[in-house]
Amino acid sequence: MASIDLNSDLGESFGPWPMGDDVSMLSLVTSANVACGFHAGDPAGILSVLAEAARRGVSVGAHVGYRDLVGFGRRNMDPSSAELFGDTVYQIGALMGLTKAAGTTVRYVKPHGALYNTIAHDARQAADVIDAVKAVDPSLMLMVLAGAPIVEQARAAGLTVICEAFADRAYNADGSLVSRRLPGSVIHDPADVADRILRLVTEGRITAIDGSDVRLETQSICIHGDTPAAVGIARNLRETLVTRGVDLKPFAEGIIVHA
Amino acid sequence: MASIDLNSDLGESFGPWPMGDDVSMLSLVTSANVACGFHAGDPAGILSVLAEAARRGVSVGAHVGYRDLVGFGRRNMDPSSAELFGDTVYQIGALMGLTKAAGTTVRYVKPHGALYNTIAHDARQAADVIDAVKAVDPSLMLMVLAGAPIVEQARAAGLTVICEAFADRAYNADGSLVSRRLPGSVIHDPADVADRILRLVTEGRITAIDGSDVRLETQSICIHGDTPAAVGIARNLRETLVTRGVDLKPFAEGIIVHA
Amino acid sequence: MASIDLNSDLGESFGPWPMGDDVSMLSLVTSANVACGFHAGDPAGILSVLAEAARRGVSVGAHVGYRDLVGFGRRNMDPSSAELFGDTVYQIGALMGLTKAAGTTVRYVKPHGALYNTIAHDARQAADVIDAVKAVDPSLMLMVLAGAPIVEQARAAGLTVICEAFADRAYNADGSLVSRRLPGSVIHDPADVADRILRLVTEGRITAIDGSDVRLETQSICIHGDTPAAVGIARNLRETLVTRGVDLKPFAEGIIVHA
Amino acid sequence: MASIDLNSDLGESFGPWPMGDDVSMLSLVTSANVACGFHAGDPAGILSVLAEAARRGVSVGAHVGYRDLVGFGRRNMDPSSAELFGDTVYQIGALMGLTKAAGTTVRYVKPHGALYNTIAHDARQAADVIDAVKAVDPSLMLMVLAGAPIVEQARAAGLTVICEAFADRAYNADGSLVSRRLPGSVIHDPADVADRILRLVTEGRITAIDGSDVRLETQSICIHGDTPAAVGIARNLRETLVTRGVDLKPFAEGIIVHA
Repeated sequence: MASIDLNSDLGESFGPWPMGDDVSMLSLVTSANVACGFHAGDPAGILSVLAEAARRGVSVGAHVGYRDLVGFGRRNMDPSSAELFGDTVYQIGALMGLTKAAGTTVRYVKPHGALYNTIAHDARQAADVIDAVKAVDPSLMLMVLAGAPIVEQARAAGLTVICEAFADRAYNADGSLVSRRLPGSVIHDPADVADRILRLVTEGRITAIDGSDVRLETQSICIHGDTPAAVGIARNLRETLVTRGVDLKPFAEGIIVHA
Repeated sequence: MASIDLNSDLGESFGPWPMGDDVSMLSLVTSANVACGFHAGDPAGILSVLAEAARRGVSVGAHVGYRDLVGFGRRNMDPSSAELFGDTVYQIGALMGLTKAAGTTVRYVKPHGALYNTIAHDARQAADVIDAVKAVDPSLMLMVLAGAPIVEQARAAGLTVICEAFADRAYNADGSLVSRRLPGSVIHDPADVADRILRLVTEGRITAIDGSDVRLETQSICIHGDTPAAVGIARNLRETLVTRGVDLKPFAEGIIVHA
Repeated sequence: MASIDLNSDLGESFGPWPMGDDVSMLSLVTSANVACGFHAGDPAGILSVLAEAARRGVSVGAHVGYRDLVGFGRRNMDPSSAELFGDTVYQIGALMGLTKAAGTTVRYVKPHGALYNTIAHDARQAADVIDAVKAVDPSLMLMVLAGAPIVEQARAAGLTVICEAFADRAYNADGSLVSRRLPGSVIHDPADVADRILRLVTEGRITAIDGSDVRLETQSICIHGDTPAAVGIARNLRETLVTRGVDLKPFAEGIIVHA
Repeated sequence: MASIDLNSDLGESFGPWPMGDDVSMLSLVTSANVACGFHAGDPAGILSVLAEAARRGVSVGAHVGYRDLVGFGRRNMDPSSAELFGDTVYQIGALMGLTKAAGTTVRYVKPHGALYNTIAHDARQAADVIDAVKAVDPSLMLMVLAGAPIVEQARAAGLTVICEAFADRAYNADGSLVSRRLPGSVIHDPADVADRILRLVTEGRITAIDGSDVRLETQSICIHGDTPAAVGIARNLRETLVTRGVDLKPFAEGIIVHA
């Protein structure tokens, strides 16, 4: 039976400003990428999300980002290696403290936003993040963009890597994401999303934007909850997968590789 | 043989702004209260201090503070319990991550500045900090102001408490610190500092500002390194204690109580 | 004919986090208290609110707050006079720059949250804010809590003061606000809100929570837009006032005093 | 008689962290680039520098930077146009408020660090800054790197541009700065610095690192005060220029062009 993990970015409220529908999403995902305070998230708010994740048995990852709150970690930056290593260690440690208080643990690390995109291909920044994860706990897994150069770099460094695909994004023939600036980059039809991901999960393939067939190693599917429509797409995807017999469980409990 | 711990606030540089002479102080103290990023300290800078502390075998504590960087954590604030609990857990966890990367561990927690002064007597904020320490790791010790109400509150809550005296501060007859706003509150003469602390360490008593004798339970002495003069006072104190046969060692290794 | 100003706190989004329905509120108010970046608001977001205020002819005030983003300026702090003076000048100046770019001007200053509540009665912090307003531009008006000690303090210092009442809050017999912690402190019925404020505007009196009659000098009414219900209450209040012949206009254009 | 302006980056302390010797530098320069709070500077500290600048008749510029305090504005970032425009307007406005309170005015804008380097050649970010300066006050001058593409871009946009050379930096044959990563990029000998700048000021030429002669339009010379050695170099340069009859005065009072 096929098995897959569903993950989402959570805990991204800040002070008086809510973001997303964390409670709904925690009823849909098997893994929660929880903000660590640099791009989003304040300790009290993060704690309430972690407590809910603990109650529901959802696996927790540290969603580390650049130190850019107003830019939500979405702007490119060029921290030195000492800065990026330190910032990553700091954020993972902070979330570990909060998970301890909430009765759960940090199982993996997923970089956020511009950091996520940069380390997919920038070997220097990737190495800083990899070194940081290993320095805190080498058994932490690293969730990265399926098909990107960092997959091999992190594995060569000894980390267990989780390859992530995006439920609502179109792919190029080489397995990379279609840029958000191009038409067709985001898939809005819930049935389309569900069909594509079902095939990816069961066959390891997805149809690229040019119609070709792409093999993509995937252990987790990222879903969004920032709008009611997004929650609807996520809910439909989950139901489709369950109906079609796919086992939803955190990758942390056993990894399926299609490659 | 009498034994005492010497501690100092370190790691308080931020980005391009240095503060204090951390390397000199690490050659004098047995315990380092290391900033956690809220009142001072950036991850890369903190890491370099922790690495030096690890090399020298200096015990490390989490120097947690209010979230007030520009005010250096010295301004009173009234966070909610959820905020203060979360902020404290977050900072301890962050420093734990950094100590892991630096090859050492967090042994204790010492609140900073306005938070330190407030929880000495404010039972609500004290409870938030105590709960936070216990939620992360109940074996962490809590360093607080000798003679203050929080000493008993934290012990009643099950924490091991370290009572701290200040090397260069005058005391009132009831064991409280003479306010910095009053003349004579700070002792500037190195010999005077050394004589007073030597007596406190060996006899458990210190002469109050009114000439009376105060019994003060003390397991650690706080020294400062923010000016060359302060480093000189600290160096003289250390040499006096060593010459007079006092054993300098982290309280973490065994606590002496005079009370 | 009676005349009154309606004001609301706007521009309180931050980076990716929206807050309130600024566009709707700008169709209802005559004065906009616009966040200046310390408790809320980022420059790009503030600019878009100011541009809309300029288009609609809504008067703009600088909504200055404590430097406490995560706490939304709602937590008490004790800045020094130099800090509070400087922070207030800085925020007013920043908003002046933004209004210039948006084609409008800053007409008044309204402190926010904990700062608003503190200076209502704390003469030292009140003096710091008053001095700051005068240092930037003595023709700026200061909007404060109707009936509070700061009203006379600011007038004695030479500022034009705008006394503000709250549309949805209950009052004590002495003209102070009923604490939010007490039952009945917030009035939720739209018709009740409209009736009370109509009487305040036309007769200069409001019924206190104990049934007594309170005289309250008022030149502006604060309305909220942080929930759809709040927008509904505000819209109903505006319609009631207009229907009953009250002239809605910014206090900046001429002040009516009932006292 | 030749005339030149000497400028320096000041007001870069933050909260408890001092930086540089602002008082000494204010006795040497004719123009002060004063931090605006994004890369450095807190309002109270900025105010004290502005008050001293006002006392000494030193011209004041807004030293605007990226919103990156821990990185001191030295890290590359890619803000959107709306963000960079807004952040620049905000910082200029804030400094205008502070100068008003200090009894002086903002005469020019000099971007800082990574922003300075980026806009020298990045036309998009340069346009955002130029637009922001014009939106606040088109009579503000813009100080930029002598010889860089932004010089013509800003002039074409209608701004008065101040071309700046660096007292202690080596130049390439094309007028660009030798990268700090290369040997010989920084000139440490005080006499060498003074000779080079004297020739630049009187002849409009400087010797490049390859020995060739470079013509460089210059209206201001940047000097540093972050170390005692830097202050010494700056003092020697000033004395040399004065002794040799060069008139030191703010460019704001009249611009000399060698080109």
